[in-house]
Amino acid sequence: MNAEIIAVGSELLTPSRIDTDSLFLTERLNGLGVAVVSKCVVGDDRQRLAAAVATAAARSEVIILTGGLGPTEDDVTRDAVASALGRTLEYDPEIEAVIDARFRRMGRTMAEINKRQAYRISGAELLENPNGTAPGQWLMAGETALMLLPGPPNEMKPMFDNHCRPRLEKLLPAQAIATRFYRIAGMPESDVDQLLAPVYTRYKDVATTILAAPGDIQLHFYAKAPTAEAAEARLGVVAPQIEALLGDRLYSTNGDPLEKVVGDLLDKRGATLAVAESCTGGMVAERITSVPGSSRYFLGGMITYTDPMKESLLQISDGLIYKFTSVSEPVARAMAEAVRFHCQSDYALSVTGYAGPDGGTERDPVGTVYIGLIRPGSVECRRVRYLGDRDRVRKLATQAALDFLRLTLETPHPGQA
Amino acid sequence: MNAEIIAVGSELLTPSRIDTDSLFLTERLNGLGVAVVSKCVVGDDRQRLAAAVATAAARSEVIILTGGLGPTEDDVTRDAVASALGRTLEYDPEIEAVIDARFRRMGRTMAEINKRQAYRISGAELLENPNGTAPGQWLMAGETALMLLPGPPNEMKPMFDNHCRPRLEKLLPAQAIATRFYRIAGMPESDVDQLLAPVYTRYKDVATTILAAPGDIQLHFYAKAPTAEAAEARLGVVAPQIEALLGDRLYSTNGDPLEKVVGDLLDKRGATLAVAESCTGGMVAERITSVPGSSRYFLGGMITYTDPMKESLLQISDGLIYKFTSVSEPVARAMAEAVRFHCQSDYALSVTGYAGPDGGTERDPVGTVYIGLIRPGSVECRRVRYLGDRDRVRKLATQAALDFLRLTLETPHPGQA
Repeated sequence: MNAEIIAVGSELLTPSRIDTDSLFLTERLNGLGVAVVSKCVVGDDRQRLAAAVATAAARSEVIILTGGLGPTEDDVTRDAVASALGRTLEYDPEIEAVIDARFRRMGRTMAEINKRQAYRISGAELLENPNGTAPGQWLMAGETALMLLPGPPNEMKPMFDNHCRPRLEKLLPAQAIATRFYRIAGMPESDVDQLLAPVYTRYKDVATTILAAPGDIQLHFYAKAPTAEAAEARLGVVAPQIEALLGDRLYSTNGDPLEKVVGDLLDKRGATLAVAESCTGGMVAERITSVPGSSRYFLGGMITYTDPMKESLLQISDGLIYKFTSVSEPVARAMAEAVRFHCQSDYALSVTGYAGPDGGTERDPVGTVYIGLIRPGSVECRRVRYLGDRDRVRKLATQAALDFLRLTLETPHPGQA
Repeated sequence: MNAEIIAVGSELLTPSRIDTDSLFLTERLNGLGVAVVSKCVVGDDRQRLAAAVATAAARSEVIILTGGLGPTEDDVTRDAVASALGRTLEYDPEIEAVIDARFRRMGRTMAEINKRQAYRISGAELLENPNGTAPGQWLMAGETALMLLPGPPNEMKPMFDNHCRPRLEKLLPAQAIATRFYRIAGMPESDVDQLLAPVYTRYKDVATTILAAPGDIQLHFYAKAPTAEAAEARLGVVAPQIEALLGDRLYSTNGDPLEKVVGDLLDKRGATLAVAESCTGGMVAERITSVPGSSRYFLGGMITYTDPMKESLLQISDGLIYKFTSVSEPVARAMAEAVRFHCQSDYALSVTGYAGPDGGTERDPVGTVYIGLIRPGSVECRRVRYLGDRDRVRKLATQAALDFLRLTLETPHPGQA
């Protein structure tokens, strides 16, 4: 069963406002096994809204409208839905009595314009609204269920949960949904797709979504079936194949971000971490400390944004920087060693590179980053190179540093438990 | 002239993702005098998307599509637009060469599936994408202009500004637009609106948009007129009144972010900065170093996320921490003093607080943050308190720290030029 959500209101077409009602509704609909196939925002325009409703009703089984149920000229939802379905609007004295009573309870008199809210689309059931004046409406047009809900979230949410959800459940075939939420570091989207498409395109009963951010690919899998066991069983055919193909590129099977995964691994080992950052300027530490409770394993670190700071704070010899430049493997190693020494941590990460737009050498052009990593007993270094603007290079370098640490923490260390 | 925006991608139909590209595009379109009359999100469904494009093209003059230009099976925008307009897709070896070159620069080989991105809708012009592999496309269908843009904001925004905007301007009736882009720190949106509404609602020929992020309010003013002088004159009536009302809360009149404004002020003084961060965990330094050229004034700093780090890295006495706790004015001051001493900077900022969800005391509950600031000759401290989750508290504290420094830098110092 497919659903469409139509948010009504010209204010939602300005640069500063966003329709968030649809996120709540999507979550509830998905929970019922109903997929949202389209979302629209339409201004306070009777004709345009009627066209949107007619289109949606012709192809989807569930249509939810939010907003446009107020008492003003601009509130066109009742009108537009009636006209899209070829129905009339009927004045309902009972609604007026309810609205009037609400005003009285607040010690006020109902304004004349509120009578507009007392019109019901022919054939619609009223949905009561304890939190506002606008009642909602539920109606069936053939096989299609339409809901007219108020826009304010504190009115819309209880109305959906108390009145729409029970009605929807009666219409739905019994079914359950199983999901997996994977995250992958260090692979571009196109490589992930090339690797996995041969699997996920073969199983039409499992829906796949790929989402890409710099250095971070999210994979969502959904399977629907009449029972929870059957839905899990469908995923159970696909998931192990995907996991095998991704190998150690898969860092999360529950949607946790990389900084959380790294934090949990450190926590499990009872180990501590320190960082020394140059070009990322604090971004690695900021991500690690975005996780509540990170003080259990994260000690702190240095931001050594200039060469003199690398010398004075980290006590890296100016000879080393002079000989190799500050963007080099020896300096990345020395930074990691120094910050571990100063913070007395078990692990240490360092990042030094050219984020751009200026800087770089022929050997190490803009976008080149060296990542140093100390773990008990050894020091390692990786060189990476990225294209893109300053922000992208910094984000990718931060992701690469966290992933380098993750891989190290997932590998059993010699001589360690 | 009316515009419609269609965001493509099944991930935008999940409960956790929202289309924000359309907010940027709405702001830009409004600035050109183009109204957005409808916004849609459509999943990765060729047929449904083609239907949405056909409907939009039949009634609006500007159609912008974002997303769905990637290399995978799921990327259906090129196909769907071609089919909606009854055009063919043509393989363009030049595009393939550009994508291939991009991969080579990264030292990688172009994947076979990236060839999908080398198809151009017949009659379309290509829009180059320096920040990703997906080129954009611009085409005219009768009087309607269609733009296919990539979904990632860092690719979409420059492509719109550099390639679509100039083309759109040519289609629009000759008119001049004057704009102001103000930014305000340290005031909630409702206060800004209450303060300014009496002014901006009085001038109907100047359009006003308010955009809110944590601790940062953006105000856009647009005036349209047949000539540039006339448009400027309209703004010239409103802008001075707004500026007078905002006073020192106004930190930018050209849209520069706070970290850029602070950096420019430091640069102008030839002064240097160091930071010591606890609860913000690197976020202050990360923002300062997001500005190209920040190494001219930013030296570095310490992230002292635990009490022992405050003692060992900053050499703050454990007696001070024991007596006052690490979230206190004396410790914030000591952190700023210490990091200035270690980095030998002119200015120093420190941040220590309870970001939550745990921690806090009766006197200083979760959300309390102390910000220390050293300037030549004196040390100051501010206590702030915020409601909201960990991420919000950290963002607001970072913004408050940068704004504290800005106000100090804007005030002439005793005995300084």
